[in-house]
Amino acid sequence: MSTESLTENCIGWAARDVSGVLSPYKFSRRDLGSDDVSLKITHCGVCYADVVWTKNRHGDSMYPVVPGHEIVGTVKEVGSNVKNFKVGDHVGVGTYVNSCRECEFCNDRQEVHCSKFVYTFNGIDVDGTVTKGGYSSYIVVHERYCFRIPNGYPLDKAAPLLCAGLTVYTPMMRHNMNQPGKSLGVIGLGGLGHMAVKFGKAFGLKVTVLSTSMSKREEALNLLGADNFVLSSDEQEMKNLTSSLDFIVDTASGDHPFDPYMSLLKVSGVLVLVGFPSKIILSPASLNIGAKTISGSVTGGTQITQEMIDFCATNKIYPDIEVIPIQYANEALDRMINRDVKYRFVIDIENSLK
Amino acid sequence: MSTESLTENCIGWAARDVSGVLSPYKFSRRDLGSDDVSLKITHCGVCYADVVWTKNRHGDSMYPVVPGHEIVGTVKEVGSNVKNFKVGDHVGVGTYVNSCRECEFCNDRQEVHCSKFVYTFNGIDVDGTVTKGGYSSYIVVHERYCFRIPNGYPLDKAAPLLCAGLTVYTPMMRHNMNQPGKSLGVIGLGGLGHMAVKFGKAFGLKVTVLSTSMSKREEALNLLGADNFVLSSDEQEMKNLTSSLDFIVDTASGDHPFDPYMSLLKVSGVLVLVGFPSKIILSPASLNIGAKTISGSVTGGTQITQEMIDFCATNKIYPDIEVIPIQYANEALDRMINRDVKYRFVIDIENSLK
Repeated sequence: MSTESLTENCIGWAARDVSGVLSPYKFSRRDLGSDDVSLKITHCGVCYADVVWTKNRHGDSMYPVVPGHEIVGTVKEVGSNVKNFKVGDHVGVGTYVNSCRECEFCNDRQEVHCSKFVYTFNGIDVDGTVTKGGYSSYIVVHERYCFRIPNGYPLDKAAPLLCAGLTVYTPMMRHNMNQPGKSLGVIGLGGLGHMAVKFGKAFGLKVTVLSTSMSKREEALNLLGADNFVLSSDEQEMKNLTSSLDFIVDTASGDHPFDPYMSLLKVSGVLVLVGFPSKIILSPASLNIGAKTISGSVTGGTQITQEMIDFCATNKIYPDIEVIPIQYANEALDRMINRDVKYRFVIDIENSLK
Repeated sequence: MSTESLTENCIGWAARDVSGVLSPYKFSRRDLGSDDVSLKITHCGVCYADVVWTKNRHGDSMYPVVPGHEIVGTVKEVGSNVKNFKVGDHVGVGTYVNSCRECEFCNDRQEVHCSKFVYTFNGIDVDGTVTKGGYSSYIVVHERYCFRIPNGYPLDKAAPLLCAGLTVYTPMMRHNMNQPGKSLGVIGLGGLGHMAVKFGKAFGLKVTVLSTSMSKREEALNLLGADNFVLSSDEQEMKNLTSSLDFIVDTASGDHPFDPYMSLLKVSGVLVLVGFPSKIILSPASLNIGAKTISGSVTGGTQITQEMIDFCATNKIYPDIEVIPIQYANEALDRMINRDVKYRFVIDIENSLK
């Protein structure tokens, strides 16, 4: 087991209480273990999870909370057993930093389902310490939970892949949504939704964006290259789409009806939920008639994470981001709550966190 | 198009109004067409659908309603083009008697998804007539929608296969629930549930019956051969089952919570809904955490129907039934509403309908 350094060797920004207000905070990271990578953080994406735990929305926040689980940086030191990374490599860290490494899920590199999975922040690591995330200058992570960012992939744009990208890519692959010519609906055009559109187009799908906001039409069609845009409040537009979609990726976290979206699916169609509305309510007929499916998903294992990053590099898929200094983090979280971001904030840790 | 006979050549029992009370009724069937099989009905199973449409529960009943879509009988006449049946054969007819026969679903023998699918009763056939079901002396059906009952399979026990059996068999096959050694939960032990238990055991699954009624324990374990019984209202028993089931077949039509059952599923577990509660309400976490799935289903196409019947014959799977005369039909429907049947009423049409 690692021992903690007695010196406060890491600088970051933390929320101290339920207000969620972030401010500078010094803390210690564990010493480098033999299997660990120490990463100088260059960028960290801003995820809705950062809002959830800085503001104690789930009632389980352990303050001070240093958020951030879309972490990218360069390797500054590696442990003696580290095989896959060397100093200077570009590396990403996502939503978890540990797991048991011996259960059926870990053996299958689906660590996200391991019962001893440790969140990157506000989690309790095996040494009993509370994990602290990427709104900080560096992080020490077992190499298993580090991912290679291919040379040439911009580090700032890589950050959102580690949660937003993975969260939609994983269920799209699991449910065979990578079959060219099939039709995909994407509900919600935020950090996750815009990546689902990009993956859909890369897979050769016909992509329809479904949004409650007409303001998204132009960007969906012209900026993101969606094939179709439907205002979900427009009954006629929705009716025209009846039984036309093979798949739907539902990224909306706000409460919304499900039956109207299920009606858009073809026979045997699948809606994958990746958001967390307060509840799902639907008519059994929405599932039974046409043998339809709703399935859920959260992030993904280490194998698919690396595959997804490599897929993005190969296919030149880049998240659309707004780069901000750490000093803007509080405003960014507020804007994120108000859905005022296209489509992901990424904190320039390297140049602003001093 | 067939023309209707001017004589009232068929005797049956029909509901005349929303009371749903059945009484003798004479009507005409269409003349035999070249692709048709005329079937002397020997038995008809009593399905909850019979309650739904005799009592106009969906608001779309077209009286008089002659219910019954678990029909078994012997061929008394065949049209000139009929290839698969001859006089004297044992034949079953299920929940539909027509479809377009040219769409993608019909071409795939998944006619249940055809948009021109015609219900066996209270449906509107291509000639504009309202279809009438198996509480009657005979029926004329295109041979495509007739199924061979293997010699030696008791005709009375064959009847419930045509709806109850098929309704659980289809999704069990679609979701790969026929993998020996896996674990199956069955919610509800009625006509559908008891068949799910039998199929589960035939597939080599470990079967747990989940019921709200302790009175089902003995019969689940000893009569049906389930491996385990859990009273769903017993929190400790439910807790002991957490994350232990690969699949659940949910046959309950009454309203019930879904989150407690979803918690019983392993990672990637699937709950298939075949009942029609008034609504489904669940927490997104029940799907997202563990990448779980809810899927729906209704009956099945003609290919899987014949496969299911043959599977039952080969594996000596027989529904447990209570044989009744047609004169008992009203009481049977009342008892069905009160769930007082083990596990399917089958009307002895041949010997009681005069």
